[in-house]
Amino acid sequence: MSEQRAQSDRVVPVVEGELPEGLVEAFWEYEDALMANDTEALDRLFAPGDSTMRTDASGLLVGHERIGAFRRMRGGTPARTIAEVRIRVVSPAAALIVSISRAAKGGTGVQTQLWERLSDQGWAITGAHVQAAPPPFDRSVWRAVGDPLAAPTASGPLDGMTVAVKDLFAVGGFAVGAGIPDYLAESPVEEADADAVAALRAAGAAVLGIARTDEFAYSVAGRNVHYGTPPNPAVPGAIPGGSSSGPASAVALGQATIGLATDTAGSIRVPASYQGLWGLRTTHGAVSAEGLVPLAPSFDTIGWLTRSAATLEAAAVASLDPAMQAVAPETFVVSSDLVESCTPEVRAAFDGFIADLGGVEVVDLGDLDEMFTTFRTVQGAEAWAADGAWISAHPGVLGPDVAERFEIASRTSAAEADAARARLVELRGRLDAVLDGRVLLLPSTSSTAPGLDASPEEIAAVRAGTLRMTAVAGVGGYPAVSAPVLSAPSAVLSGRLAPLGLCLVGPRYTDLSLIALASSFTA
Amino acid sequence: MSEQRAQSDRVVPVVEGELPEGLVEAFWEYEDALMANDTEALDRLFAPGDSTMRTDASGLLVGHERIGAFRRMRGGTPARTIAEVRIRVVSPAAALIVSISRAAKGGTGVQTQLWERLSDQGWAITGAHVQAAPPPFDRSVWRAVGDPLAAPTASGPLDGMTVAVKDLFAVGGFAVGAGIPDYLAESPVEEADADAVAALRAAGAAVLGIARTDEFAYSVAGRNVHYGTPPNPAVPGAIPGGSSSGPASAVALGQATIGLATDTAGSIRVPASYQGLWGLRTTHGAVSAEGLVPLAPSFDTIGWLTRSAATLEAAAVASLDPAMQAVAPETFVVSSDLVESCTPEVRAAFDGFIADLGGVEVVDLGDLDEMFTTFRTVQGAEAWAADGAWISAHPGVLGPDVAERFEIASRTSAAEADAARARLVELRGRLDAVLDGRVLLLPSTSSTAPGLDASPEEIAAVRAGTLRMTAVAGVGGYPAVSAPVLSAPSAVLSGRLAPLGLCLVGPRYTDLSLIALASSFTA
Repeated sequence: MSEQRAQSDRVVPVVEGELPEGLVEAFWEYEDALMANDTEALDRLFAPGDSTMRTDASGLLVGHERIGAFRRMRGGTPARTIAEVRIRVVSPAAALIVSISRAAKGGTGVQTQLWERLSDQGWAITGAHVQAAPPPFDRSVWRAVGDPLAAPTASGPLDGMTVAVKDLFAVGGFAVGAGIPDYLAESPVEEADADAVAALRAAGAAVLGIARTDEFAYSVAGRNVHYGTPPNPAVPGAIPGGSSSGPASAVALGQATIGLATDTAGSIRVPASYQGLWGLRTTHGAVSAEGLVPLAPSFDTIGWLTRSAATLEAAAVASLDPAMQAVAPETFVVSSDLVESCTPEVRAAFDGFIADLGGVEVVDLGDLDEMFTTFRTVQGAEAWAADGAWISAHPGVLGPDVAERFEIASRTSAAEADAARARLVELRGRLDAVLDGRVLLLPSTSSTAPGLDASPEEIAAVRAGTLRMTAVAGVGGYPAVSAPVLSAPSAVLSGRLAPLGLCLVGPRYTDLSLIALASSFTA
Repeated sequence: MSEQRAQSDRVVPVVEGELPEGLVEAFWEYEDALMANDTEALDRLFAPGDSTMRTDASGLLVGHERIGAFRRMRGGTPARTIAEVRIRVVSPAAALIVSISRAAKGGTGVQTQLWERLSDQGWAITGAHVQAAPPPFDRSVWRAVGDPLAAPTASGPLDGMTVAVKDLFAVGGFAVGAGIPDYLAESPVEEADADAVAALRAAGAAVLGIARTDEFAYSVAGRNVHYGTPPNPAVPGAIPGGSSSGPASAVALGQATIGLATDTAGSIRVPASYQGLWGLRTTHGAVSAEGLVPLAPSFDTIGWLTRSAATLEAAAVASLDPAMQAVAPETFVVSSDLVESCTPEVRAAFDGFIADLGGVEVVDLGDLDEMFTTFRTVQGAEAWAADGAWISAHPGVLGPDVAERFEIASRTSAAEADAARARLVELRGRLDAVLDGRVLLLPSTSSTAPGLDASPEEIAAVRAGTLRMTAVAGVGGYPAVSAPVLSAPSAVLSGRLAPLGLCLVGPRYTDLSLIALASSFTA
């Protein structure tokens, strides 16, 4: 009886063509299985094989196995009722079914399904396109957005552009969250913009929103345990890179023109590389850090993520003191040792690029592992000095990765930190001498963007390889541009090419010049 | 040569099955036509007939003619390149093509197309599902959104609920925009929340965002010339109703739990009726208007839009003084004259409901046209007093409809206004006497939601019919609930049923009781 009643509540499909037997029944069986999260039935009603397709807002899944794995990870479809069904019969063994669903929590979804009658198992979906009622905004990317959230304060070269501000900078009228709900709840409302925000607004840009960061910016992965992982539209299914994950994804998604971000140990260069964006980490000290939550002040720099070199240059011009800028020579060097920590695919892509470029001298940067260890010791000591008191007062708040990093940092003794600081000065002098005013070329990251399902070990390995490379600019206080010039095969894309940044590290205060040099590689 | 080069830039499709002749060429021809906005070619490549379907975020279009009309109205697809194409061959005459596109302005789109080889014209699309890269948020619905924009100030019965605040209420830290960009630009940042906002936050609700309103709330259509028309998810292709359009659509879309709104002449009841929501316009004066931009203080009331009666009741309990509340008797009356301004479909739906209910007395409310004229005269005089100085100082800023309404209001003489005010007191006394503490039932609106393409004449007629009905509560200062109890056939939905509100108008201070009464109709 109850099944009878359920049947009668169902809308009557509008059918074009002669309705094949069993099709409507299969459609409702699938819908019921969705609502019950009956993965066995769902697996059965999706066609087997490698060419079955499922598409939604986050992209395309191909193959019965990947679709099933996604479904088990997702854990159920929100409750809905089907309000309208239209069937176009293609042949006695194929039909397109478009249905409109009303979500129990409000909103309307639309689904398109291609059903085919398979010889061995009857009706099954061979292609589906699912569009759920959208959320008000993507909270993995944004903390707040507005039209605009803060208007330009003057007209200028950035007129019409919008900014995604990393949630480490003060935006007048808002508190700073630093990627942590409890920190946000305790933070005061800022009276004024950070200098870097004010500079962009004064040049004509509007603040579109405040975008997500890894907790205290102490990660390069872009996974925030509180707010989720922003999408990587260049490599669907991969992590976005961090810690400037929100500004990067907002720009890559076409939602903002400029991502205002920070880079201590790669937090601009890594998401730029993973998402095919332009990114500039400025010379240490070249842009005022007033109004910025610090991570490690000896290395913290400000910069931008954009989709074009021209926009990156405009943001930099609006924010840097042009009188301080120098010209970088068009003389490039590489370090074989630096590339050693890369995946074979990245190494091949970079080596091929350098070979094509020709005439690039190889330099010896010294012991890179020692350089990174020295960098990490000072960074950890400063990070703990900045955030240790808060973290100690809020046990259990941070996600495991970042918590572990701070825990290690907390164990740095004053003597160790002092020794590392002294060594840092020596290393910087050595780097200055070896590079001798030339531009160092390297891949921005040791790999293309790892998959969302990468193991902790894989993430850790990729991170270690990348930080060993990004630390050079950190130690030298150098500016570094990541340009979307390279690409390499990606397992996440079933072997297709994923973006990879080419990094140009120049002498201090050659920021603008580096953008121009990098542009010449994309002409 | 150039065509050759363009061809070679194209990605190679991944094909499952035996590729039929001409299919890939047709796919690229269609893509090229899209980029060139060649509507003739697009019309040709979409199959003729009434069953061709096109689905996107805003819903489903059916029939070649409607799809073509939409395409001409839209005016072109944003520039994009196709990054991936997958073809599943269904038969020699049918194939599903899924493609991934990269928008020039960033972001990724996905398209699913069913292609069929038609006997008379070759390959054509018979079904398409288009999903473009999403904007950061829907600016027709929201001015700003956050996670949250303003947190609860205490825990309470509204814990976990989110509020869409109509952009007439002060939200601390933000200026009030009143639906007008220039007004927003000149408005000061509010130091404190409006009382109605504070009440919800104190009961546990978070402010999710500030939602759109018609300009100065002086419309019931929900079309804002500056920010666009919010969607009506219950009737895709129809206007949302206003002036509380943003809060209503936000709730109907499932993006917010509660819409905090105002109702002077129907601004809560109309969008509730058009979108199948619950809406309460409270007793005049029952909720503090502190921190609210006034339209016509003699009639302005505060209220809420929700998807359930229980949530509406919770919002009302959190905001009203329970000691002031009285119980409405379960005795219903109707006015034949009121229903006369309705469309035949609405009248039939309402009359059928009343007949089923049985035992409902018919009352004579007097000359409804005179009542509306009196209401409108006082409303206009007060609206001009509130906003006339600003409007005079900003010529050309308002959209034509609202500008005309204010222009008419500006011509009200002091003598006319005084006479109308005196008459209003008499009319209110007469209404009190006729209704005699009973509950008046009427349709919330004179029609279901008109289509986005409705003519100005049609909109004006529907508006006049509706305002004649909504003015009764305005004149009496009565509370009114709009309950999603009725439905009527809609031309916008090709004759299918669209929601229609049943309106319960009760004695002053029977707000909570009216919600309970209305709930009994939906059990």
